[in-house]
Amino acid sequence: MSATLNRLARVLEQRKSADPEGSYVAGLYAGGTNAILKKIAEEATEVIMAAKDGDRSKIVYEVADLWFHTLVLLAHEEMEPGMIIEELERRFGTSGLAEKSGRG
Amino acid sequence: MSATLNRLARVLEQRKSADPEGSYVAGLYAGGTNAILKKIAEEATEVIMAAKDGDRSKIVYEVADLWFHTLVLLAHEEMEPGMIIEELERRFGTSGLAEKSGRG
Amino acid sequence: MSATLNRLARVLEQRKSADPEGSYVAGLYAGGTNAILKKIAEEATEVIMAAKDGDRSKIVYEVADLWFHTLVLLAHEEMEPGMIIEELERRFGTSGLAEKSGRG
Amino acid sequence: MSATLNRLARVLEQRKSADPEGSYVAGLYAGGTNAILKKIAEEATEVIMAAKDGDRSKIVYEVADLWFHTLVLLAHEEMEPGMIIEELERRFGTSGLAEKSGRG
Repeated sequence: MSATLNRLARVLEQRKSADPEGSYVAGLYAGGTNAILKKIAEEATEVIMAAKDGDRSKIVYEVADLWFHTLVLLAHEEMEPGMIIEELERRFGTSGLAEKSGRG
Repeated sequence: MSATLNRLARVLEQRKSADPEGSYVAGLYAGGTNAILKKIAEEATEVIMAAKDGDRSKIVYEVADLWFHTLVLLAHEEMEPGMIIEELERRFGTSGLAEKSGRG
Repeated sequence: MSATLNRLARVLEQRKSADPEGSYVAGLYAGGTNAILKKIAEEATEVIMAAKDGDRSKIVYEVADLWFHTLVLLAHEEMEPGMIIEELERRFGTSGLAEKSGRG
Repeated sequence: MSATLNRLARVLEQRKSADPEGSYVAGLYAGGTNAILKKIAEEATEVIMAAKDGDRSKIVYEVADLWFHTLVLLAHEEMEPGMIIEELERRFGTSGLAEKSGRG
């Protein structure tokens, strides 16, 4: 599982030097932060629709798309998926699930 | 990394028998799919705000929150994070990044 | 103001018999509720971006787009903009602004 | 209809001098642009849920909430609902519906 996210992050890093015309990801980088954020909003909406439609394979597909575009954001901001995993670890790791408290 | 997502998924599974009053996650399950989906939309918005604010540590925090709530959705729908990793593998795994094609 | 929203609603009604190939709105109707809802999510995101970018003319443009697509949804569901105005009246009309209370 | 939106805008203007503790809207202003934008995202999501649930009275309620919070944004940015109506007029007014062209 680790291997997949890390390898994906490396490929996203390499795409920074690709031609925006020929690479979907390079096109997103060229569109800037707003282009990436619009995709994150769009994929979150697709997850919601898929769940409301009760379409399980589409839920998987769209959650993967949503994670993918957050990885693109991280790469664009010079961050790595390991930082997300560490944050999840920090909250939930040592003592089972330390429950979220009092946040909106 | 794998360990974290899988352990988190197991804890989310266990929370299905917890008291909704005492557990944030059990409260989400009790609220049903709509409650979980509202949180996914909310966390996606928080990611967008954090990125527009250029607040890097908040980006990490909110992406972790977004991933977390997609894991809650998966648990609620009797699915596992490995399915998302497999979907990412399927698309990007064997040949580096097989670029997304022709989607909105 | 009334004239604009009502006339717009009438035109949206007429578009139900238009060719989806030649009419943007008829294309949305043909795409079904999901197509319309995706646009509402997209335009809400554009409003958020425009506001974060401090781009005032874009805020106006995107709020207009957001309202427009909610009018498309209303038309698709056989409802009218007057129902929204009545709802706003009901809450805020008679006694100045009866403040929203206790909602998420 | 005009009367409602304009009166609502005037009340929202007056709320700028209200106590954030005692007024929902003054509380939003005090929370700044991000607080208002989060509500716009939230209400857009509620519209989507209501539509997917086929709950017509909830669609009306949530679209009213969404319009309301865009009016709060406009007030916060020193703009008026008439500007949105003018924008809709500009696009759709004189010649029936001049169809949207070529936008995402």
